[in-house]
Amino acid sequence: MKIVALAGGVGGAKLVDGLAQVLHPKDLTVIVNTGDDFHHWGLKICPDLDTVCYTLAGLANPETGWGRRDETWKVLSEISQLKGEDWFKIGDRDLATHIERTERIAAGKRLSEITNSFCQAWGIAISVLPMTDEPVTTIVKTQEQGDLAFQDYFVHQLCEPKVKGFKFAGVEFSRPSPGVLEAITEADAVVFCPSNPWVSLDPILSVPGITPAVKKTKIVAAVTPIIAGATIKGPAAKMFLELGIEPSAFAVAQHYEGMLTHFILDALDQDLEIRIAGLGMNTMVTNTVMKSTDDRHKLAADVLNFIQRTA
Amino acid sequence: MKIVALAGGVGGAKLVDGLAQVLHPKDLTVIVNTGDDFHHWGLKICPDLDTVCYTLAGLANPETGWGRRDETWKVLSEISQLKGEDWFKIGDRDLATHIERTERIAAGKRLSEITNSFCQAWGIAISVLPMTDEPVTTIVKTQEQGDLAFQDYFVHQLCEPKVKGFKFAGVEFSRPSPGVLEAITEADAVVFCPSNPWVSLDPILSVPGITPAVKKTKIVAAVTPIIAGATIKGPAAKMFLELGIEPSAFAVAQHYEGMLTHFILDALDQDLEIRIAGLGMNTMVTNTVMKSTDDRHKLAADVLNFIQRTA
Repeated sequence: MKIVALAGGVGGAKLVDGLAQVLHPKDLTVIVNTGDDFHHWGLKICPDLDTVCYTLAGLANPETGWGRRDETWKVLSEISQLKGEDWFKIGDRDLATHIERTERIAAGKRLSEITNSFCQAWGIAISVLPMTDEPVTTIVKTQEQGDLAFQDYFVHQLCEPKVKGFKFAGVEFSRPSPGVLEAITEADAVVFCPSNPWVSLDPILSVPGITPAVKKTKIVAAVTPIIAGATIKGPAAKMFLELGIEPSAFAVAQHYEGMLTHFILDALDQDLEIRIAGLGMNTMVTNTVMKSTDDRHKLAADVLNFIQRTA
Repeated sequence: MKIVALAGGVGGAKLVDGLAQVLHPKDLTVIVNTGDDFHHWGLKICPDLDTVCYTLAGLANPETGWGRRDETWKVLSEISQLKGEDWFKIGDRDLATHIERTERIAAGKRLSEITNSFCQAWGIAISVLPMTDEPVTTIVKTQEQGDLAFQDYFVHQLCEPKVKGFKFAGVEFSRPSPGVLEAITEADAVVFCPSNPWVSLDPILSVPGITPAVKKTKIVAAVTPIIAGATIKGPAAKMFLELGIEPSAFAVAQHYEGMLTHFILDALDQDLEIRIAGLGMNTMVTNTVMKSTDDRHKLAADVLNFIQRTA
C-alpha cells in the first residue's frame, strides 16, 4: 500500500517515523509544511522539514522532539555574548543544517533537491518532500499585535497573542515541489499526521493543486492532534478556542469535512466517535499518544490496518 | 607616548598584545589588515581582525595562535557529514563571530563599528581598526595557477603554488576606516608588527592616504618577521625566495626603505645590524621570538624603550 503523509513538526514527525518503521521505504512519501520557514542569523531555517528529517534519522532530541540529540550551544552562547539575536535557540549541530542549506540555495539549488541530498547523508530511505520549493510564509493574524510571522508568534511571543486568523503569504503563486502531485496521485491513501490543522496542514493543503489531488485519493485519513480538548504540544487547541471553536477531535474532523474519509481519534475521546462518524467518516478509536518509539510503530500499524480493512 | 601599530595575524597580534600590556589603552591604536577577508559558508570572515581581537581578549587558542581557546567543532563535523565545504576550519565559538558580523553588515553597519562593538563585548580597551570598511581582496599571483584569492592560496593550497606577485583588488577605491588617519596623525610612532610584509602590511600601506600619513610620523619602527632567514609562522620567507630575494631581516628593512626610521632585529641576526643601519635606520637587536605572554610584554617594552631613547 502506497501512503502519502502530510506532516508539520514534532507530532507529525513521530507518526511519520512510525509509518517508516512499518512500510517499505518506496511506499512512503511525506509532504512537509514549509510555511514556518524563516530567516534567522541570515540563514534559511525550515523547522518542520528538520524535525521530520532528524526524527527519521534518529538524530532528534528525544526530550524536546525538535533539534538535535547530543546538542551543544556554543555558537548561541557566543552570539549572546556579542549581544546578537538569541531568542531563537539554534544548537551547534542543528546550525550546520541551516548553513549548508543556505549555501546551496545561494548556489541555485531547490529546497527539495537539498532535502533529498540531506536525507541521503542522514540515511533516510523514505521520500521527504517540502510542500513547495517556493517561499510561502505563514502569518498569524492576532488581536493585539496585528500580523505576526509564525516564528515570531510561536517562539518569540510564546503563542501569547490572541489569534484572529491565518494567511499563507505567497501560497497562491507557489507550486507543489517536484514529486508531490505524482506521489499523491499514486497513493492508495493520504494520512494527515497529528499536526496543527491551522498552521501545519492547512498551508500544505493551500498549495495550488494539492487539495484537488488529495480529494481524488480513495482514502484520506486524519489522526487527531487534539486529545481530550488539548494538544500534546503546540497551540492548536488554543487557536481553536480563540477562533470561537471548542477544541476537540470533532472540531478537527469538521475542519477537514469533505476531504476526509477516515478519522482516528484517541481512546480518551471515545464519546466523540458517533458525532465524527456523523460527518460521513470511518472512525477508529485507539491510543494516539506517542511517548515511545514503540508507540509510534503501534499507532502507524493501527492506522494502516484500519485503512486496509475499510478500503 | 601614542602608538599606532599595523598588524596582520598571529605574530602581529602577539606584539599588539604586548603593547596593550605596557601602554595606556588610550595611547594604542592597532590598524589591522583586511585583505585576507573572504566569504565562506555565506559568512564574512576577517581572519586578521579576529586573531588580533581574540588575542587581546585572551580568547585565542594558545596552541595555534588563531581561532578560539576551548574550541569545539560540532558545526564543521556536521557540515562534513552533509558533504559541505570543510577545508576551512571554523570552530563553533569562532563561527558566532562570523554569523553576528555578517548579520550586522547585512543590516548596514560598517566593519569598523562592528569591530568596536565586539571589542566592547570582549572587554578590549584599546582601539582596533580595520584598515578600511570597504572590500579589498588580496590576490596571490602564482606561476602554476594564476591568480588565487588569499585564503585559497593560504589554507586550501597550503601556500604551495609559487608566488609571482600580489594584487590588492579594489584597494585604489578604498578609504581608510574612520579614525585610521587621525590615529596615525596623532601618533608619536608607528610600529610595524612582525607580520608578513607582502600580504599583511602592504595591503594596509596600499590603502590611499595611509602611506603618506605614516611617512609624516616622526618615528616609524618595524619589528622583523624574519629571523635567521625563516619565519616563525606563515609564508613570508618562502614568498621572498620565490620573488628572487634572499629572505632576511635586511630584506624586510629594504622592503620598507624610505619609510622606516627604526628597525628591530633578532639576536640571531646580529650580523645584519650594520647593513640595516646602512639603510639609514636606527637599529636594535633583541629577542623577537614571542613564546610566552611574558615575551610579548618584554618585546613591547624593548621596542618602546628603543623608540623613546632614540626619539
